[in-house]
Amino acid sequence: MKTGTIALLTDYGTKDWFVGSIKGVIRTINPEATIDDITHELPMGDVRSGAFMLLCCYRTFPKDTVFIVVVDPGVGSNRPNIVAKAGDYFFVGPDNGILSLVLRLEDSVSVHLLENSRYFRKPVSSTFHGRDIFAPVGAHISKGVMPRSFGPKAAGFMSFPFPEVKSSGSSVFGEIIYIDHFGNCITNIDEETLRNLPADIKAVSARFFKEIPFREYYQQAPSGEPLALLGSSGFLEIAVNSGSAAHKLGLKVGDPVELLLKG
Amino acid sequence: MKTGTIALLTDYGTKDWFVGSIKGVIRTINPEATIDDITHELPMGDVRSGAFMLLCCYRTFPKDTVFIVVVDPGVGSNRPNIVAKAGDYFFVGPDNGILSLVLRLEDSVSVHLLENSRYFRKPVSSTFHGRDIFAPVGAHISKGVMPRSFGPKAAGFMSFPFPEVKSSGSSVFGEIIYIDHFGNCITNIDEETLRNLPADIKAVSARFFKEIPFREYYQQAPSGEPLALLGSSGFLEIAVNSGSAAHKLGLKVGDPVELLLKG
Amino acid sequence: MKTGTIALLTDYGTKDWFVGSIKGVIRTINPEATIDDITHELPMGDVRSGAFMLLCCYRTFPKDTVFIVVVDPGVGSNRPNIVAKAGDYFFVGPDNGILSLVLRLEDSVSVHLLENSRYFRKPVSSTFHGRDIFAPVGAHISKGVMPRSFGPKAAGFMSFPFPEVKSSGSSVFGEIIYIDHFGNCITNIDEETLRNLPADIKAVSARFFKEIPFREYYQQAPSGEPLALLGSSGFLEIAVNSGSAAHKLGLKVGDPVELLLKG
Repeated sequence: MKTGTIALLTDYGTKDWFVGSIKGVIRTINPEATIDDITHELPMGDVRSGAFMLLCCYRTFPKDTVFIVVVDPGVGSNRPNIVAKAGDYFFVGPDNGILSLVLRLEDSVSVHLLENSRYFRKPVSSTFHGRDIFAPVGAHISKGVMPRSFGPKAAGFMSFPFPEVKSSGSSVFGEIIYIDHFGNCITNIDEETLRNLPADIKAVSARFFKEIPFREYYQQAPSGEPLALLGSSGFLEIAVNSGSAAHKLGLKVGDPVELLLKG
Repeated sequence: MKTGTIALLTDYGTKDWFVGSIKGVIRTINPEATIDDITHELPMGDVRSGAFMLLCCYRTFPKDTVFIVVVDPGVGSNRPNIVAKAGDYFFVGPDNGILSLVLRLEDSVSVHLLENSRYFRKPVSSTFHGRDIFAPVGAHISKGVMPRSFGPKAAGFMSFPFPEVKSSGSSVFGEIIYIDHFGNCITNIDEETLRNLPADIKAVSARFFKEIPFREYYQQAPSGEPLALLGSSGFLEIAVNSGSAAHKLGLKVGDPVELLLKG
Repeated sequence: MKTGTIALLTDYGTKDWFVGSIKGVIRTINPEATIDDITHELPMGDVRSGAFMLLCCYRTFPKDTVFIVVVDPGVGSNRPNIVAKAGDYFFVGPDNGILSLVLRLEDSVSVHLLENSRYFRKPVSSTFHGRDIFAPVGAHISKGVMPRSFGPKAAGFMSFPFPEVKSSGSSVFGEIIYIDHFGNCITNIDEETLRNLPADIKAVSARFFKEIPFREYYQQAPSGEPLALLGSSGFLEIAVNSGSAAHKLGLKVGDPVELLLKG
């Protein structure tokens, strides 16, 4: 078997040795592994943002990539650890919902519990499962060990609802679910919803801004002015050309967004 | 062909999944590629700093390295995307000047437009060419695809002037063009200028500080005191031993610097 | 010889091209090397934190890993540069104490000076030995060059004392030596000390907080409440469940910590 890519998504930060330890453990088990960081700067304990970020990027990775995803405020307690095979990919992490957006999207999903301590680093600490459980399990998967080797099939997996988009008359209602590095405000209104609107978009409204035009790329708005567009991850986003929409418009996660349709 | 190194230099930040997506796309096309981050923390849209940073490090990389350089406030508009073969290296990015310092330095330069969508990720978004155009093009180059395969020869490339050093009497006038992580203030006065001065340096002056001594390494100044020296990238820099010159002397990019010569 | 892993630990930051330059130099010498970042965000010049971080993670890496460790306020002065073979690992860096915690822990240690300029990048700058000395030396070691090739055996290496744990009556006294990304406050009281206590721990005290309970994992304290536990690196730490102990309890490096024993 060709050894694959291992991609890491955590809230461990980059200032300490935590990510280094994870890579050291992986290299010790599989010196041929390719390891890529997605990010380690997830807001601490923010399972929802982590789940969304994974959703936004996992399909760019090659078949058989192993995603080690750790945002784990409950580490050491009795919440289960899981491995999932979903579509063409493997996912390893705590069963706290962080894998749920991806697992609900894929058709073919099987989830196993991580219980076979034979594959763990010893002794298993009660505070750093990233190093002692998830890293060695991910490394073994990248060498061809099958998910069933790690433990029994799980009855299910923890999940949380993706915020729902609602319609009423000539309006579609959503909300801001993520703010990126550039200050772009990403909403829960996805590409499919936009494609199936009964009429064209007249304007987008967010907080005090009622007349945000819908455009295709940033420079179609004057510099410093807001616009809405279909972002690269497949969701409507509110942006400011050459500026931060979050800062300039005072928007934050959870703020409602309304699409006003024509006619 | 030996698959080479791909080096990334962007303003995408490290808190989102953007860099992860780029790496995923590259791995999917060329699982054997070596990917190195130069940085993803360029100030947003700061094409000049990006061009300078690339200049300061590209020659440390091996022959045939592919540099993917993305600072792209105009993404989605009709500014061209380009690939350049310059000296021993390949460069991929928007044609907005970010490659120009390097391209003007190399003798043998050929530039092609990125127009052959056969090599792009589909659909091409209007806001994330890093993932959809630059990453797949860079990955294909690392596998041996030649620049001419991506589109016609470009008539030229966008460029901006490197700030000029001036002389008058016993003074040489430059300016601060970059401030690094340590607060060292790097100027546009390069090694060659320093080597060809008509007389030795008496002192360096920047803002309110008229008597900064010229030295060889940091600890030749007392702790907390300023000095000027030839920095590791080949430019005069103003530093403070065990401190930040930017903070301690209140210096910023654009501030004038004067070399006072002896005699 | 199988080419190994090179792990980097520096205070160079990630916003400039410094780490990129180091990787470029390594790739040029050894295109097959695997390079992992431990961190580049060490506080500037903080040799003690660097030494501690290295101690906390080096044993997770595979045999023959080369650690390039650079926190080097004295760069360019006449402090020596060294390479050490210690146990199963190689360490390269300035001789300023940053390697000393690891070197004192390992039984089999030999240290050589880096003096053979044949292995350096030319010209050697006086301000960036990471790029010009440590990176090329590390790359050569990863290709099988032996430490004795770089220079004569060193008489010793610079060291600093690890803060001592003291006991008196039913108390054990230590101090906070490191604060991590999550705000956990790591002390100098190690696992062996905890295992050999003459009685069970009644409570832990730090600053104004006299009754911190000793637990096994974070969620054994109510959310937002402090606890002490044996951390994953083998040292007692003071934490707050789902919060930052440093912030919530106002703790900082150097603050005294007391273990109160039962009976």
